[in-house]
Amino acid sequence: MSNKPKAVVLLSGGVDSTTTLAIAKKEGYDLFALSFRYGQRHKVELVAAKRIATFFNVAKHLVIDIDLRLLGGSALTDNLEVPKNRTTEEMGGDIPITYVPARNTIFLSFALAWAEVLGSEDIFIGVNALDYSGYPDCRPEYIAAYEKMANLATKAGVEGKQKLKIHTPLIQMTKAQIIKKGLELGVDYSLTHSCYDPSPNGEACGHCDSCLLRLKGFREAGVQDPIGYRKK
Amino acid sequence: MSNKPKAVVLLSGGVDSTTTLAIAKKEGYDLFALSFRYGQRHKVELVAAKRIATFFNVAKHLVIDIDLRLLGGSALTDNLEVPKNRTTEEMGGDIPITYVPARNTIFLSFALAWAEVLGSEDIFIGVNALDYSGYPDCRPEYIAAYEKMANLATKAGVEGKQKLKIHTPLIQMTKAQIIKKGLELGVDYSLTHSCYDPSPNGEACGHCDSCLLRLKGFREAGVQDPIGYRKK
Repeated sequence: MSNKPKAVVLLSGGVDSTTTLAIAKKEGYDLFALSFRYGQRHKVELVAAKRIATFFNVAKHLVIDIDLRLLGGSALTDNLEVPKNRTTEEMGGDIPITYVPARNTIFLSFALAWAEVLGSEDIFIGVNALDYSGYPDCRPEYIAAYEKMANLATKAGVEGKQKLKIHTPLIQMTKAQIIKKGLELGVDYSLTHSCYDPSPNGEACGHCDSCLLRLKGFREAGVQDPIGYRKK
Repeated sequence: MSNKPKAVVLLSGGVDSTTTLAIAKKEGYDLFALSFRYGQRHKVELVAAKRIATFFNVAKHLVIDIDLRLLGGSALTDNLEVPKNRTTEEMGGDIPITYVPARNTIFLSFALAWAEVLGSEDIFIGVNALDYSGYPDCRPEYIAAYEKMANLATKAGVEGKQKLKIHTPLIQMTKAQIIKKGLELGVDYSLTHSCYDPSPNGEACGHCDSCLLRLKGFREAGVQDPIGYRKK
């Protein structure tokens, strides 16, 4: 048994959650990585999450099945078209149809349950309020309200033993800053996956919001994105 | 299409959630009932939830699969012994091992997602702070914090269009008051199921905390509990 404190880290297999995992490791936590099979089109991200969990030698990687398709309402889980080739301005406007209703709320709730079982006081989530495509559940005020609720929700909270913290180390960083930080910490970004609409073999499209933000981030960080993109 | 407002109602199939469903119906909502298959020992409660949803002619009844067993930590999902024959004082003391970590937080998060997709502003949950066996996520301060978080979590919340309310009509009622209220509203309690440790055929044990609270409630309400209990 390790004497390190335990952290539950939400891991999608993308650039942000992978960098968050590297930061939690650097801060001295034993890592408990949590991923979800939620009916997303881009299931290849779970393959990425698995290899990243192995790369970081996590204490445990749990993949939870939840079928958000039943609820409907998102291009990431339904048969709606993923938007392509949008400008940064277009992404920053309306909340896009790739938004999955209450997704971070659901994911954090499972993280909270696991933290309670593990006796962990630390949950890490790679949300980002700058380059974030306009998702409501990536904003600092949302995270603060979640943390307050979480401290009232649990057994340890009632007993006054636990002070749960939701760590959002990337919340005020640009994608380029995130990538630079990750590279400093030894992240191998060739393991990651970001595309909302990959080929069956897992190759990224290069044109959805997520690919465009990723490519812009690498460009601004002055480094080459190590993953391949499919030809048109 | 109905012109009534839509309500998402968490429905376990027990006395409290069934009474809550009856109250939401009485208040004029179109009912969207939400249940979970979460690895609970007492799966018979889902059979009860289904017949109650039919009885109340809900617009839709959704059963979501989530495997809380993976997380561990509760007698309701793990192979731990369910406590029997405890006094009310014993139940009111420590948080019991039948507590499922963060369960209401997880359930409300799915309700929130569904409400967002449906365009509903109303979630009903039958939590109870009096007879409640000491669960942290049944307290009014927890519900208030959840509601605040939920209003920051969603697309509609950001756009200022939606004001989500978590309704807890039973929160300050005794079990006897809940049963009397339900009977006034025409609830058929023979459809409901409460036991944490039923027989394979669904018969209630009569000795777990949930059975004891139910039996006490019917006794205090001065009516006969219409369900059967197994002989020792």
